[in-house]
Amino acid sequence: MPSALPLSAVLLSLLTAPPKAPAAATKDVGPSPQVAERLIGAALTEGHAYARLAELTDGIGPRLSGSEGAEAAVQWAKRSFEADGVKVWLEPVKVPRWVRGEESARVLASAGRFREHPLSIMALGGSVGTPAGGLTAEVIEVRSLDEVAALGDKVKGKIVFFNHAMAEAADYGKYAGLRTRGASVAAKAGAVGALVRSLATASLRSPHTGAMRYEDGVAQVPSASVSVEDAELLHRLLVGGPVKVELKLGCKTLPDADSFNVVAEVKGREKPQEVVLLGAHLDSWDVGTGAHDDGAGVTMVMETARLLAKLKPAPRRTVRVVLFMNEENGLRGGKAYAEAHAAELANHVAALEMDSGGGKPLGVALRAGPGGEELVRPWLRPLEALGAGKMLPGEAGGADISPLIPARVPFVGVRVDSSRYFDVHHSHADTLDKVDPKDLAQSTAALAWVSYVLAEVPGVLPRPEAPPSEAPKAPAAPVGAPKPSAP
Amino acid sequence: MPSALPLSAVLLSLLTAPPKAPAAATKDVGPSPQVAERLIGAALTEGHAYARLAELTDGIGPRLSGSEGAEAAVQWAKRSFEADGVKVWLEPVKVPRWVRGEESARVLASAGRFREHPLSIMALGGSVGTPAGGLTAEVIEVRSLDEVAALGDKVKGKIVFFNHAMAEAADYGKYAGLRTRGASVAAKAGAVGALVRSLATASLRSPHTGAMRYEDGVAQVPSASVSVEDAELLHRLLVGGPVKVELKLGCKTLPDADSFNVVAEVKGREKPQEVVLLGAHLDSWDVGTGAHDDGAGVTMVMETARLLAKLKPAPRRTVRVVLFMNEENGLRGGKAYAEAHAAELANHVAALEMDSGGGKPLGVALRAGPGGEELVRPWLRPLEALGAGKMLPGEAGGADISPLIPARVPFVGVRVDSSRYFDVHHSHADTLDKVDPKDLAQSTAALAWVSYVLAEVPGVLPRPEAPPSEAPKAPAAPVGAPKPSAP
Ligand SMILES: [Zn+2]
Ligand SMILES: [Zn+2]
Repeated sequence: MPSALPLSAVLLSLLTAPPKAPAAATKDVGPSPQVAERLIGAALTEGHAYARLAELTDGIGPRLSGSEGAEAAVQWAKRSFEADGVKVWLEPVKVPRWVRGEESARVLASAGRFREHPLSIMALGGSVGTPAGGLTAEVIEVRSLDEVAALGDKVKGKIVFFNHAMAEAADYGKYAGLRTRGASVAAKAGAVGALVRSLATASLRSPHTGAMRYEDGVAQVPSASVSVEDAELLHRLLVGGPVKVELKLGCKTLPDADSFNVVAEVKGREKPQEVVLLGAHLDSWDVGTGAHDDGAGVTMVMETARLLAKLKPAPRRTVRVVLFMNEENGLRGGKAYAEAHAAELANHVAALEMDSGGGKPLGVALRAGPGGEELVRPWLRPLEALGAGKMLPGEAGGADISPLIPARVPFVGVRVDSSRYFDVHHSHADTLDKVDPKDLAQSTAALAWVSYVLAEVPGVLPRPEAPPSEAPKAPAAPVGAPKPSAP
Repeated sequence: MPSALPLSAVLLSLLTAPPKAPAAATKDVGPSPQVAERLIGAALTEGHAYARLAELTDGIGPRLSGSEGAEAAVQWAKRSFEADGVKVWLEPVKVPRWVRGEESARVLASAGRFREHPLSIMALGGSVGTPAGGLTAEVIEVRSLDEVAALGDKVKGKIVFFNHAMAEAADYGKYAGLRTRGASVAAKAGAVGALVRSLATASLRSPHTGAMRYEDGVAQVPSASVSVEDAELLHRLLVGGPVKVELKLGCKTLPDADSFNVVAEVKGREKPQEVVLLGAHLDSWDVGTGAHDDGAGVTMVMETARLLAKLKPAPRRTVRVVLFMNEENGLRGGKAYAEAHAAELANHVAALEMDSGGGKPLGVALRAGPGGEELVRPWLRPLEALGAGKMLPGEAGGADISPLIPARVPFVGVRVDSSRYFDVHHSHADTLDKVDPKDLAQSTAALAWVSYVLAEVPGVLPRPEAPPSEAPKAPAAPVGAPKPSAP
């Protein structure tokens, strides 16, 4: 935007010229280049984010809502904030408690056509189990939810196999509805189960789980993800005639459990009532160790809090870190935060969620009213050497902060490279080794600086338009998705 | 080699000049360019090799020696040769019968350091099982076989964890000994088990199995492969102190089973007693469907036989295809062939084994006496447009043909690109989708032409030096390895 250039030039001169009246001038000028040095230098050299990520993934491991791992993660996060000298408290959240059981599936042999094949599958989170002896039915392949209804009676008594063509990270939003809604769409047409091709950009026979939801009043049928290889096998076998699959899922839903959002904050020196919210989600799936999803986000926001807490003076506004519980299979933490803090949401001047993995930083996106970019862009220069000094197109967002949309909280996104994120997302392979310590440090540096800018800049982001309806509204992407426009 | 150039020029002129006395000249000139057109054109356009590979992998699936899958593969191969009009017979081979059972492993929690972690493992082929309740012991990490002895008493009662730095396909030979010999080396030092980092060039928490052997007179301890990710986890956890692992393997060895090498041949028109042997192995591991290892090789040699059988007149010499049984865990098929055909090995003028996957062709390698290259090089021109018209350094070989070394049979290698072979080798992910039909067709074309040249060329390859000892000798690479110099 051309109008930003003069503003930027003015600010640049302010930054480089000696302050006229030191104390007052510092306050008015806003973000300080010395702080940029300190935050970026520390994030790039001290390695705290990666060390914390190792504690969370190797030390605690998977942490699905309601599990012992999730409880351990809450206590670890609290202890860690305390050790960093950051004020921290827990806010209660009732979470669903879904547990995986023994699970397996196989294609039954078809005399003269093919012998039996094991299928590499994982129950989708929230699925009911099958009868103990399993469920055996013919498979019918579709490419979309709409195709199910179009097939009419052919679906009755079958397992609907949702195939798709996900090839790159950007395709996630296109096909995630097959996973979240497939089982109910299939059941409405009379199906007895659903198999969904894994939402994955790489596979070595690796199934990828994720949340699914049953529609009210529709029969609940078992639903599992199937590896890309086995989806292609099913497709090939179906070309030659009927294919029967036996599916055994031992998963079940237990009563809701008590858990917590972990909330920490660095109080603002001048406008403590104004809150810049930095979010990430502490829960993960029950397989892998949630290193990219969302251990990386958790450790980036924790490290940002640690670095900001050491600043003297503190930033102008309060920076609040929320480690949300239950992003993956319920969003209860995000909803609980919005409810518990409803009275102060008008003072939430910005919210940001890190939940697209630990890749290197790419730039900053916004969801704000007109003029938002002009407020932020002039302050991105310190991120240029990290390749992240750009305003990026696409709206900022995040599943856990989506309940703040009705309150018109401006959203900021520190975008990271998530082109390989779906290689491991929601799979056994989302482990520490997949996160590059350099990338994590660079994104932490970008986040720390952007957070400080939001807390220190003299003005605040214009608030975005109110959404069409007042009702809390999920973002375009499904639960568990990264920001809708993640690359 | 400079001396090859004049010969090449002479042959080129013979090929392009009109034949003087048609019938006799054709016979003397050797391989015909019209045959090059026919073989390469057919292999590239008819898609038989890939269609057969689909039958073998999707239709039959895994085929470990002694299993129903292996028996089905033998019958399928026999029927297929018959359908192709190629003479075929079965030659008996007694094979070991090893069966995998339920298997799992986990790192036990260490209070204050880490919670429990599941380990992604697979028993190595030939391993004994653990007691039903599993085996629990501390883990000790080593990088080499030699390091075990150097550790002395520290190994006693422990599970030795063989870690290594395999990064690319060429590293396979360097580290395969950890897998084949690790358990016995560990047991000699008092260990109770062995975990071996998977020999893999890609991983999504994917274990890779493979053969291991117990030394005579050494205690037989259970041995399993562990995924690359979990090897790195063990390494990280061991930095902080003791790590205990529980290992449960339900595998066992049953009595030897009856099986077969499948032998097919196209009789030579002029020197039927001279044999050009084309090998591949019909068995596979019990996970995945052995698409690259060695379904690709099997279908390439089968298609070569089909195409050569259609030639009128037939090639000068006999081309014999042997689909060996039990390359993966015993080499019984290779040994049985060498024994059963001992009397005619002096008439084996060349042997070639395709066992490095279904990648695109790169060129030709030899293991022959001086002058061998000069015989073959002039005939590689038809492969230039496939990128395979080169003589390559490194010796040709193959596990199943290695028992022919004492008989000084010249070896030929049609090398394929195996740079990604170890991404899936011996794992659940070695499935049809990993084989590119274009690459498979091109390597089949190269193989068909080279095979025809060997059967038709007026001279024969000089035989290589006798090996130092008369005893049958395994090649440098371990059982299950591709040609030692595979890229
Ligand atoms: Zn996430
Ligand atoms: Zn092989």
